[in-house]
Amino acid sequence: MTKRTEIATLGEFGLIRHLTEKIKLTNESSVKGVGDDAAVLDYKEKQTLVTTDLLLEGIHFDLTYVPLKHLGYKSAVVNFSDIYAMNGKPKQMTVSIGISKRFSVEDLDEFYNGLELACSIYGVDIVGGDTSSSLTGLTISVTCIGEAEKDKIVYRSGAQDTDLICVSGDLGAAYMGLQLLEREKNVFTGDRGFSPDFGGKEYLLERQLKPEARKDIVEMLDKAGILPTSMIDISDGLSSELLHLSKESKAGCRVYEDRIPIDFQTASMAEQFNMNLVTAALNGGEDYELLFTVPLSMHEKVADMKGVHIIGHITKQELGNYLIGRDGGEVQLVAQGWK
Amino acid sequence: MTKRTEIATLGEFGLIRHLTEKIKLTNESSVKGVGDDAAVLDYKEKQTLVTTDLLLEGIHFDLTYVPLKHLGYKSAVVNFSDIYAMNGKPKQMTVSIGISKRFSVEDLDEFYNGLELACSIYGVDIVGGDTSSSLTGLTISVTCIGEAEKDKIVYRSGAQDTDLICVSGDLGAAYMGLQLLEREKNVFTGDRGFSPDFGGKEYLLERQLKPEARKDIVEMLDKAGILPTSMIDISDGLSSELLHLSKESKAGCRVYEDRIPIDFQTASMAEQFNMNLVTAALNGGEDYELLFTVPLSMHEKVADMKGVHIIGHITKQELGNYLIGRDGGEVQLVAQGWK
Repeated sequence: MTKRTEIATLGEFGLIRHLTEKIKLTNESSVKGVGDDAAVLDYKEKQTLVTTDLLLEGIHFDLTYVPLKHLGYKSAVVNFSDIYAMNGKPKQMTVSIGISKRFSVEDLDEFYNGLELACSIYGVDIVGGDTSSSLTGLTISVTCIGEAEKDKIVYRSGAQDTDLICVSGDLGAAYMGLQLLEREKNVFTGDRGFSPDFGGKEYLLERQLKPEARKDIVEMLDKAGILPTSMIDISDGLSSELLHLSKESKAGCRVYEDRIPIDFQTASMAEQFNMNLVTAALNGGEDYELLFTVPLSMHEKVADMKGVHIIGHITKQELGNYLIGRDGGEVQLVAQGWK
Repeated sequence: MTKRTEIATLGEFGLIRHLTEKIKLTNESSVKGVGDDAAVLDYKEKQTLVTTDLLLEGIHFDLTYVPLKHLGYKSAVVNFSDIYAMNGKPKQMTVSIGISKRFSVEDLDEFYNGLELACSIYGVDIVGGDTSSSLTGLTISVTCIGEAEKDKIVYRSGAQDTDLICVSGDLGAAYMGLQLLEREKNVFTGDRGFSPDFGGKEYLLERQLKPEARKDIVEMLDKAGILPTSMIDISDGLSSELLHLSKESKAGCRVYEDRIPIDFQTASMAEQFNMNLVTAALNGGEDYELLFTVPLSMHEKVADMKGVHIIGHITKQELGNYLIGRDGGEVQLVAQGWK
């Protein structure tokens, strides 16, 4: 049996001490971390990037199938992804959690293990946060702070007519992973003796449960001397993100269905579920890949880049935002979001 | 009748646009605000301060008697208070909210009006955030970023033996305001025709519902050429905060009951409620006053300062942390916190 220590046995200050005493600062810019009214950072001549995400139980995650360690890892990584999408480097993070009595000290240790694993892999320091009791479920709020050289920050707004539209990795897998977990959860709820079969679908689960931020792509572009004209990370689905880039850049776009990178596990799962594969790739969300544009003159350089796919090009704004199907048909892109 | 626009009519992106389109950036250090993957700040030679707070409905606030505009104002101010407590200036803020269907667009407008009022008074820019649907109630997460000159940051850890312990304003009023609101709520719940009587207790309500951060005290100290040796804001009660200062400074403290500043409304309310006044002042919380230490040589300067009270002095660590009663009796200070 796993040990269960009630949070009440530690109290608020004891819990904070327990969760934060192991935390070490590794970045030169982290002057003072947890333990004062505010953290102190020193970015010297660099500019500071700030991003934040709110994650609520029942909305963003389901603890029936999301292990707390994975949740910690993902909570951190999705914020790092936003910093990379500015062509920056994540350096510090604050983590606030609201916890109901359902959770034990061991549960929070698991969550923090995930956070700390992500931090050690991506070189980020936890410098502050807030802990609170909660009436219902788990609330997580992460703010990530990063640095970038002033002239190298990439906004959503710099895409120009004829720029190539590129995407890293592949799309739709995280969404298919979610569908799979939801299906197995429903089956499981009906039959207590059932054990879920995820054989051959590990990639989909990993994309959903343990996503990575594309630090490698940002570094590769830098090494190749390519500064994207615009960039965004794909958290809400390719379609939404393309529309953000277009809007902010006052441009239009044309992307080609047959160019959208999709893993074979994603395709096979979509078939099993009888779902439209392109819809999953366009609107699925949670891919945390990078969508960026580069000048047409960079064609050769990006075409040869491992893990980067050219999926279309930027047009003048009045030409709108379109997906060109395999049959040559054009479909206007529409935004998704929660209602 | 007040207008009620369902959030669903705007959708996620429409809601974000609606809430953020009026936001203007006023600080030179705010390079890019809402509308990209991360905000961009430029603090040049200054150091960066970061603090964050999580506010949950039913734990930190009760919407039965807290108007949403006040809640917005308070959510901002409590974070500014943490930045002032480092002897810094708050400059930017991110605001994340999780909202259930119970809330309308007008409700959120009220909340944002409060946030924006606080921002305009304290000179802070809203530069980002996250909005999400929520299954239950309202979740608020605010992160505040501020600046300070490297040599002027005041930590909790700098208090020295014989330093004077000072506190701004008065204590216990916010707690008494909360007791009053809770009592009227209970009476109100019992009798629909009842209208609460707050006459003569306005100060207590204001301290609970619309607290201010002590920007003025920080500026006054700077003007007088006084750099505190340690500082903290009083959010959890004087007792807890004194223990934080002592612990971080590896020191002890002695504070005198008859020196603790208490407003007459607080005292009269405590009598009505038959509550111990000193307990309310020591453990009440939410005062958002500043607790700081200065060298003994500064005695004359701080003694003359309006709104500042000398309540005791720092001792060697082995002497512990004590409150000296009016009768000369000594009581050991103990920490409070949620369980």
